[in-house]
Amino acid sequence: MTTLLTPTDIARIVAAHGLPAVLRRMEEAITADFRRWPEFDKVARVAAHSKTGVIELMPVADADQYSFKYVNGHPGNARHGLPTVMAFGVLADVATGAPLLLSELTITTAIRTAATSVMAARALVRQDTRPGGRTMALIGNGAQSEFQALAFHHGLGVGTLRLFDTDAAATAKLVRHLRGVPGLKLQVCNSTAEAVRGADIVTTVTADKRNAVIVDASMLEPGMHLNAVGGDCPGKTELAAGVLHAANVFVEYEPQTRVEGDLQQMPADFAVTELWRVLTGQAPGRRSQAEVTVFDSVGFALEDYSALRLMGALAAELGLGEPLALIPRLADTKDLYAQLAAVQPALRAA
Amino acid sequence: MTTLLTPTDIARIVAAHGLPAVLRRMEEAITADFRRWPEFDKVARVAAHSKTGVIELMPVADADQYSFKYVNGHPGNARHGLPTVMAFGVLADVATGAPLLLSELTITTAIRTAATSVMAARALVRQDTRPGGRTMALIGNGAQSEFQALAFHHGLGVGTLRLFDTDAAATAKLVRHLRGVPGLKLQVCNSTAEAVRGADIVTTVTADKRNAVIVDASMLEPGMHLNAVGGDCPGKTELAAGVLHAANVFVEYEPQTRVEGDLQQMPADFAVTELWRVLTGQAPGRRSQAEVTVFDSVGFALEDYSALRLMGALAAELGLGEPLALIPRLADTKDLYAQLAAVQPALRAA
Repeated sequence: MTTLLTPTDIARIVAAHGLPAVLRRMEEAITADFRRWPEFDKVARVAAHSKTGVIELMPVADADQYSFKYVNGHPGNARHGLPTVMAFGVLADVATGAPLLLSELTITTAIRTAATSVMAARALVRQDTRPGGRTMALIGNGAQSEFQALAFHHGLGVGTLRLFDTDAAATAKLVRHLRGVPGLKLQVCNSTAEAVRGADIVTTVTADKRNAVIVDASMLEPGMHLNAVGGDCPGKTELAAGVLHAANVFVEYEPQTRVEGDLQQMPADFAVTELWRVLTGQAPGRRSQAEVTVFDSVGFALEDYSALRLMGALAAELGLGEPLALIPRLADTKDLYAQLAAVQPALRAA
Repeated sequence: MTTLLTPTDIARIVAAHGLPAVLRRMEEAITADFRRWPEFDKVARVAAHSKTGVIELMPVADADQYSFKYVNGHPGNARHGLPTVMAFGVLADVATGAPLLLSELTITTAIRTAATSVMAARALVRQDTRPGGRTMALIGNGAQSEFQALAFHHGLGVGTLRLFDTDAAATAKLVRHLRGVPGLKLQVCNSTAEAVRGADIVTTVTADKRNAVIVDASMLEPGMHLNAVGGDCPGKTELAAGVLHAANVFVEYEPQTRVEGDLQQMPADFAVTELWRVLTGQAPGRRSQAEVTVFDSVGFALEDYSALRLMGALAAELGLGEPLALIPRLADTKDLYAQLAAVQPALRAA
């Protein structure tokens, strides 16, 4: 039998543990799975593009479990009262193909994306020397922004957030949610350039599907780390090519990021490093305090595999989740037809 | 909101209309969609293979709707009390990415596979001249066999079925279900060769994942049509290469069948015809009464798109289906974080 986790179940898990603890456990789960990267059967996600957005399937598997996520990206969805990004996913048993867990992944994707950002930044940011913790510019204050803000505050000691969004209402919403978080200073800025000035970390989480230049090379300062989350689709970028030329660039799964990331602007031989190699000590991360590092994040199926497993385990601990009748239960596995007869015996004679 | 259709809902739809009518409407729906083939964004399905089986995702879309199916194939599943093939799928809105319908597809796949088989045979079988209707050999008497039998009986005037399975219990089960269908004669045979002898149509629906030779060239008779359903995965075939050499071969989506079908045994330049071209009159089907035709069926995503739409419509007519909370409903689409606060207000201060 398949277990169903709804958005309410995920919210209850977060309520029970607190978002900082869930973000921390998510980062630990994703890091552990990235460290066993070669064990996974990987493929770039399968995208169906339309005029208004994209729908993607993201499968991955190891020898024991298979997962996939369904996720869309429709920047104009607000006019339909729908989120830009909606997602759900399934965890299945490789030995039998049985779907074990069907879970919402809209909230969970925001958590896993923020946890992945912190995982990358933990490996790549320069040593912290300032009193009051690190400063992070947060460009794009929409649905993902609270999760990024809290993940970096609790996980990586970000003490000051410098906020900018072209939609002032989005920034006001973010301030409303974060006001009162102990030890977190909020500075609302009037432009990206203002927000980025003096920041240790620059996080971009914008939604527009276009080749945007949110950050250009003139904004870079020595030692900055850029966490570029919003450029994740062909035709959807956030960084100027000059930023990538000036930086040491890290990616999740190179074949996918070449097509989807800010990297799509660069020649095929532009060098990048897959993050798992840094996490396993096979490749260096940051090479100097002055180097600019970029995590060109697009979101990879393995992060959803980790997230589905973690949320499934946390739900089980709390007794959350409902059985979902997705697969017929057969007395005789070669007798599917009996499922019809069971409802209407007259059908036996068709 | 997403609508959920369970196996019981699908069984109720079949009970309300009768399986023959559902099979007929399914064939009509699939035929209509195959006739507008160029309108679809198509891709070969994405398969994850393991020692025990395969798990596949099958997406397809036109300008309005997107669908995908999750389906496994695990021939050893009987020992776990699970069906060999289990499936579910989703129909979504291309304009917003919202999932509209989540449905079981285990029973539905059996129906759509049989309907597709009849659609192909309708275009390819020789003219029927015998009293008592056509004779079909049905090799493999497992979960799919009743659906194939009834689809061909009701849809294409098959009056005699010649049955064989290496598992006599499977044949006994099939006979139990079909006994009493008016105008359908059943002949239990002791071998494939015996079953195939004199048949107008030969349907193979076997489950073993191996390069099997269920039908070899010595069994062919002039004018036969072969409906080869079971060979649908790399390393899983049913027909000897000699059968394909001797026949005019038709496929669903050539790039996928080259990898998965009985066609996987043939050189890359072995000529085949995509079925939609026959259905639209762009290519000939059978060219003579004596020609042997083969439908090398592997199952294509478009059939599941048609099936999801039909089952969704039939369910709506009958008032079946339950709302499924898969996607959070947001008062402010940029405020996903509020979903957490709604469950536990204390989280606002994280």
